Amino acid sequence: MSQNLVFTNDVAPALDAILDAKPHNHLAVIVDENIARVVLPEIRSRHLAEAQIITIGVGDSCKNLDTLTHVWNSLEQGGATRKSLVVNLGGGVVTDLGGFAAATFKRGISFVNIPTTLLSAVDAAVGGKTGINFGGLKNEIGCFQEASDVIISTRFFATLPITELKSGYAEMLKHGMLSSHDEFIKLTGYDFQNADAEHLLQLLKTSVLVKERIVKEDPHEQGIRRALNLGHTVGHAFESKALHDGKPIAHGYAVAWGLVAEMVLSHQILKFPTEDLHRLADFVYANYGAYHITCDHYDELLHLMHHDKKSEHGEINCTLLAACGDVRPGHTITDDQMRIALDLYRDLLHI
Amino acid sequence: MSQNLVFTNDVAPALDAILDAKPHNHLAVIVDENIARVVLPEIRSRHLAEAQIITIGVGDSCKNLDTLTHVWNSLEQGGATRKSLVVNLGGGVVTDLGGFAAATFKRGISFVNIPTTLLSAVDAAVGGKTGINFGGLKNEIGCFQEASDVIISTRFFATLPITELKSGYAEMLKHGMLSSHDEFIKLTGYDFQNADAEHLLQLLKTSVLVKERIVKEDPHEQGIRRALNLGHTVGHAFESKALHDGKPIAHGYAVAWGLVAEMVLSHQILKFPTEDLHRLADFVYANYGAYHITCDHYDELLHLMHHDKKSEHGEINCTLLAACGDVRPGHTITDDQMRIALDLYRDLLHI
Repeated sequence: MSQNLVFTNDVAPALDAILDAKPHNHLAVIVDENIARVVLPEIRSRHLAEAQIITIGVGDSCKNLDTLTHVWNSLEQGGATRKSLVVNLGGGVVTDLGGFAAATFKRGISFVNIPTTLLSAVDAAVGGKTGINFGGLKNEIGCFQEASDVIISTRFFATLPITELKSGYAEMLKHGMLSSHDEFIKLTGYDFQNADAEHLLQLLKTSVLVKERIVKEDPHEQGIRRALNLGHTVGHAFESKALHDGKPIAHGYAVAWGLVAEMVLSHQILKFPTEDLHRLADFVYANYGAYHITCDHYDELLHLMHHDKKSEHGEINCTLLAACGDVRPGHTITDDQMRIALDLYRDLLHI
Repeated sequence: MSQNLVFTNDVAPALDAILDAKPHNHLAVIVDENIARVVLPEIRSRHLAEAQIITIGVGDSCKNLDTLTHVWNSLEQGGATRKSLVVNLGGGVVTDLGGFAAATFKRGISFVNIPTTLLSAVDAAVGGKTGINFGGLKNEIGCFQEASDVIISTRFFATLPITELKSGYAEMLKHGMLSSHDEFIKLTGYDFQNADAEHLLQLLKTSVLVKERIVKEDPHEQGIRRALNLGHTVGHAFESKALHDGKPIAHGYAVAWGLVAEMVLSHQILKFPTEDLHRLADFVYANYGAYHITCDHYDELLHLMHHDKKSEHGEINCTLLAACGDVRPGHTITDDQMRIALDLYRDLLHI
């Protein structure tokens, strides 16, 4: 892996420099309808001005085989060859699907990712996960293939709904907790009301580099990369329950709430510091509110955790922290431990 | 790459040993309808007896997105997880499509190839090329992903039509010429009328190992791997012309004839030995006959060579040999040189 990460809010010159240095005979840009209308015209890149534009529908429901076939056909009709390049400009749907299309077109052509949402910047654009939903399952078909270059910018986030920004921020919070106490303090001191693009870019840079380090150690998710699952065991259960109840919640919100519950477990099992647990809970409550559950929901949540796709042998498995930066993957959690953690989660988030 | 190649005519124990050593919770076997009927019942493997059988249609026209979707769906419905294994038992269509299906299911599960034709044994099952035809183009969609293990056997070839056996043998001949003069002599001494499975397995083993060595040096086809294109510049032109004329020829036959023409070029440009050129031409004529062309066809053939997908900047590009085993990739050939080579090709093959 030798992925080139560029952190800048001056996107057009960065992109042109990257494309100048890559001989290619055809360039395609994959965007969704919103990005085509709102973002694409704002990027004054020489190369983009001459590129083939491939537009796909908006939202996760478009991340499917039909859209993939449309992109493959468009590349073919646009005259793409093995020496073509693809630029994926968009959120997670565009980077996941566009990356998979490029990774499989003529057995793989190079692609550049320019994530336009915080979630895709921090999560989807690094690590080489590409793919589509299939047969009703998320990311069922795909492969591991990294973009040659990723341009990471916060300039596109100004137009994002605040809930989407916060959703992405929860993954940054996770990376900060995996990284160090200093990062955790910085991140929990962030003020969404007075957001500044350059300040956020610095926080984002640290966050992405944490993820990159973990992914490099374990590209195919066999070991330490499971640390990135922090907050997700409980978070996924909340997300699934909400979906079943017909009241879906944003992934990042579920992760933020999941982090609180899993830091309770970390506190109980590994003595994760009380002070940090409270600091986390206060930040999450102030910015994300709470996911409301009662003890009547515990059985359902436990069932979901036992049947999570990352569960082995039906056990509930969590990455825990002895402290921020002191990561302990692979803890098996008993039902009783989880019930107590959910009790304390409710206390901490004033439910 | 750490692909495990097993050469044996005792397939079932070899497969069971491989599968015993690989923890998995689900096994799927991909076969076409012919293999399901004729070959599968003959392999007395414990593991195969309990596997999910996924059957696809016969022939290159089935190597498409519909069939791929059928395989993905079947894997999903069969309960395949990230810890499932796939066995591809068949010719090139099964190993190409089945390999691509496995490489992309849940972002990649392991697969074992058991090629049942000489062509897929020598060519398609090593090197990690997977894929399907798409939009009217061969292998347009796919990726590079090697099987974890390949079991190579000649026991399935007894039922192959002799033309198919010879077609695969042409690729072996190519590998022999890339490898050494000794191999070339052995291969051009082979008698198709008195074929012996064990003798052929030994020749095949050398041939596959030559290919493996070249692929290891250049997994993504950037440099020396182009040596594997030997015989294919002229061969592809013959194949395309025959297809346009509505009289398609087998790929391997085209390669055999292409080898003769390209060894004429090697003789003219790099003094490839006269004696070996004649030995090659005699063997090819005796076993493959000749592809009949007249000088009226030269312009069409030159046009096809200039527009070959592997041509850069529209030039005719050939790998040549100074001698068997002395490989010189990347020669640009002028139209005049090619016309003379085609003249001598016709002389050598009594046209």
